[in-house]
Amino acid sequence: MTELTLKPLFNFDEMTLPPRVGNGFTGKDILSVDQFDREKLKYIFARAHEMRELVQRVGSCELLRGNVVTCLFYEPSTRTSSSFIAATDRLGGRVIPITQGVQFSSVSKGETLADTIRTVEQYSDVIVLRHPEVGSAQVAADYSDIPVINAGDGAGEHPTQALLDLFTIREEMGRIDGLKIAMVGDLRYGRTVHSLTRLLTQYDVSLRFVSPEILRLPLNIMNTVIDAGLDVRETHDVADVIENADVLYVTRVQKERFVDLAQYEEVKNHYVITPELMQRAKEKMVVMHPLPRVGEIHYTLDDDPRAAYFRQVKNGMFIRMALLAAVLGKA
Amino acid sequence: MTELTLKPLFNFDEMTLPPRVGNGFTGKDILSVDQFDREKLKYIFARAHEMRELVQRVGSCELLRGNVVTCLFYEPSTRTSSSFIAATDRLGGRVIPITQGVQFSSVSKGETLADTIRTVEQYSDVIVLRHPEVGSAQVAADYSDIPVINAGDGAGEHPTQALLDLFTIREEMGRIDGLKIAMVGDLRYGRTVHSLTRLLTQYDVSLRFVSPEILRLPLNIMNTVIDAGLDVRETHDVADVIENADVLYVTRVQKERFVDLAQYEEVKNHYVITPELMQRAKEKMVVMHPLPRVGEIHYTLDDDPRAAYFRQVKNGMFIRMALLAAVLGKA
Amino acid sequence: MTELTLKPLFNFDEMTLPPRVGNGFTGKDILSVDQFDREKLKYIFARAHEMRELVQRVGSCELLRGNVVTCLFYEPSTRTSSSFIAATDRLGGRVIPITQGVQFSSVSKGETLADTIRTVEQYSDVIVLRHPEVGSAQVAADYSDIPVINAGDGAGEHPTQALLDLFTIREEMGRIDGLKIAMVGDLRYGRTVHSLTRLLTQYDVSLRFVSPEILRLPLNIMNTVIDAGLDVRETHDVADVIENADVLYVTRVQKERFVDLAQYEEVKNHYVITPELMQRAKEKMVVMHPLPRVGEIHYTLDDDPRAAYFRQVKNGMFIRMALLAAVLGKA
Repeated sequence: MTELTLKPLFNFDEMTLPPRVGNGFTGKDILSVDQFDREKLKYIFARAHEMRELVQRVGSCELLRGNVVTCLFYEPSTRTSSSFIAATDRLGGRVIPITQGVQFSSVSKGETLADTIRTVEQYSDVIVLRHPEVGSAQVAADYSDIPVINAGDGAGEHPTQALLDLFTIREEMGRIDGLKIAMVGDLRYGRTVHSLTRLLTQYDVSLRFVSPEILRLPLNIMNTVIDAGLDVRETHDVADVIENADVLYVTRVQKERFVDLAQYEEVKNHYVITPELMQRAKEKMVVMHPLPRVGEIHYTLDDDPRAAYFRQVKNGMFIRMALLAAVLGKA
Repeated sequence: MTELTLKPLFNFDEMTLPPRVGNGFTGKDILSVDQFDREKLKYIFARAHEMRELVQRVGSCELLRGNVVTCLFYEPSTRTSSSFIAATDRLGGRVIPITQGVQFSSVSKGETLADTIRTVEQYSDVIVLRHPEVGSAQVAADYSDIPVINAGDGAGEHPTQALLDLFTIREEMGRIDGLKIAMVGDLRYGRTVHSLTRLLTQYDVSLRFVSPEILRLPLNIMNTVIDAGLDVRETHDVADVIENADVLYVTRVQKERFVDLAQYEEVKNHYVITPELMQRAKEKMVVMHPLPRVGEIHYTLDDDPRAAYFRQVKNGMFIRMALLAAVLGKA
Repeated sequence: MTELTLKPLFNFDEMTLPPRVGNGFTGKDILSVDQFDREKLKYIFARAHEMRELVQRVGSCELLRGNVVTCLFYEPSTRTSSSFIAATDRLGGRVIPITQGVQFSSVSKGETLADTIRTVEQYSDVIVLRHPEVGSAQVAADYSDIPVINAGDGAGEHPTQALLDLFTIREEMGRIDGLKIAMVGDLRYGRTVHSLTRLLTQYDVSLRFVSPEILRLPLNIMNTVIDAGLDVRETHDVADVIENADVLYVTRVQKERFVDLAQYEEVKNHYVITPELMQRAKEKMVVMHPLPRVGEIHYTLDDDPRAAYFRQVKNGMFIRMALLAAVLGKA
């Protein structure tokens, strides 16, 4: 198209990429935990397990060489964006971090999410989206020709968190089937609890839900658990479940949820994990938490080998590495 | 200089870079569209075209390995900074993104632009500067020993936008000479229109300027067009030009420009591109827009193959790749 | 742990990293200048000198391939964070830049520094921490299993600044012993002056402290200098030291420090470096400044070969490259 006779910059014959692999995820969006059946979970967990070994041995690889991952965060979440950035880095990909101030730029000029997505996809090979509105990830996926990974859409979904939670259980306990899993704290509003519970209905587990009365698990999720035929019970005190639990998944009971603060003061200690409580727990079990925590797990517990919440953070990076590699057809 | 006998870290004999290439851009600043004659445009477009092929085939290369590109943005522009970041990533270079909060740090302590530039150039191989003040890019270039690329200096220039606009015309239509190009909307304040028009005066094109009376093309640019001997006409309604246009370059008519809102309501529809209007357009033509848009191009038009505005975004990355490689002597 | 028979993604036998090198820094934190004796300084300076050669010749290397450096900045410091980012880039490592908005995210939810550190270390191989509180770097190091580099903890330490200052003296003058070094300006609050002075007590130097009465060097640092047996004097006017100084280390005298503005007006010119003053200085000497400056060094001096303050910035990158490579066992 040009009459200029330039020496070509690239010799494309010498630059080839391996073909994309069909793995059931290639080119797909990751929007919801409902996309994951046991077979798919098994696949992602196997890849995440390999990623752990990779990072331990050599730190990184070049699987995503030539790929650009845009982290488009409409609300700040340092924890999640850092995890995706680290995941991309360790796969040899590059990140465009639009993690701050999206609101100051095009969006403030009235651009729709759809247009922002269609703009960003021109530069990128995959979009990681965080957005405060439920359903935004689906909108993004509808408009995007490249894979969209939902990194949290408000009160909606945050599938990579649920996957890392489940992966942590599996890595720590060696299996999922047969475990007694207790969810503790705010079960009503806790998005992570809902998503993890939905994933767990695919396994043969016993579930214990421990919460104040006003923060009990929503009806629809409870019904899903019951429909799945799982052994399930609800209780108001973590002391009721501590002795038998293989997994204690702890979330925060926020004072703000209570109209009557006296009521909060009365119940709050039933959801705090103390060293004394842990003396009654099994020797082989794990305490998990989506973090950040504010007092609901005592700091003195951190050196207990059963405290898995920081290892859980690390597993998030491995899961995200596995997902990125999968949707890009590299795994 | 040290008496320590350390085993050297590097064997420089084995680490060599290809010599910098003299291409007319090597070591130069990119400040204004006025630097670009047809020969230079042809060169950059040929390189940008190669970049497209590179990205399509293998995603990235290592041309800028070892190079650090600092994106110094004194005002947010996610669109432009992301494009430069992606361009650098895909060339194998590294980015220092100073795209937020410049005002909070050294600048708030009273540091001059000159000192900031002389600081940043110590780390970097090229500086991409966005600054709200006209002429700031020239000041930066005066003080910098490394190339400065102007990514917008207020009401001044934004040369990479103009280059990507022209490149898009060329890629979409296969040529520039002989085309009928209509600029639509706010022609008075639209920086992108001014710069693109100035570039187009080097070609044999017909120009149509479509705007409300109060937003007509500034006198000096109109005179430049006339002096260039181009076929040119002004009109108030895009309907007047739709049938013959090969290129429709649309910009937003902002309500805020009108003192009399009744006047705005009266004329606004003359600058909106609808599917009905497009039925009267040629089959082979393109609609462009610098984005973001807010209603001036109907969303239903997005699937029309003539809608080129998102491809235009992608071309921005290719143009910036070509420019970065050129000023660093890699192309 | 999975029954899936997947083709393994990685052949670890072919992916090996060289073993970590024991260099006295490997795996250690860099928190204070007090960690550095002459032997350690010699080592770091020798490595930094190699880094300069590396950057000049080929721009970058792959020493930190596979390593992730998290820049965790609780207060903005574009200058310092950019320097660490460039250092990491030029070593082939990857950066997670948490340089803005830390306060908006987890921290605003009440997370402790300890928990943030233990979270971030899951993704990273080294943490570069900037925090407004004295002692925060030590807290971070206590909780982190990976090396922490203190990039400034309030009125506490900023060891990499002191190291780059001393390295600059050595690179510019070819030695440190035997030099006459004058510190000028705000010696009371100037953290950089205090740290550099403490490092200099390990050398055989003459020190001159030039400041307004109310901004004299703190007693404890003065005593340290005296205890080291160095030739030392204090004065109120830079004119007193200009003729003999080999190094003029200039800092800003802030108007805000003075209760009586008339007093400020009276003395301020005694701490400004002008071309006239420099005519009385030695031909071979250097003027340094930690930057940013606001008038205390005339802009007309910038072309004077003795003006070393921008070269000083570049040395910061080399020092940080050397430190990163050292703590990661790569040098």
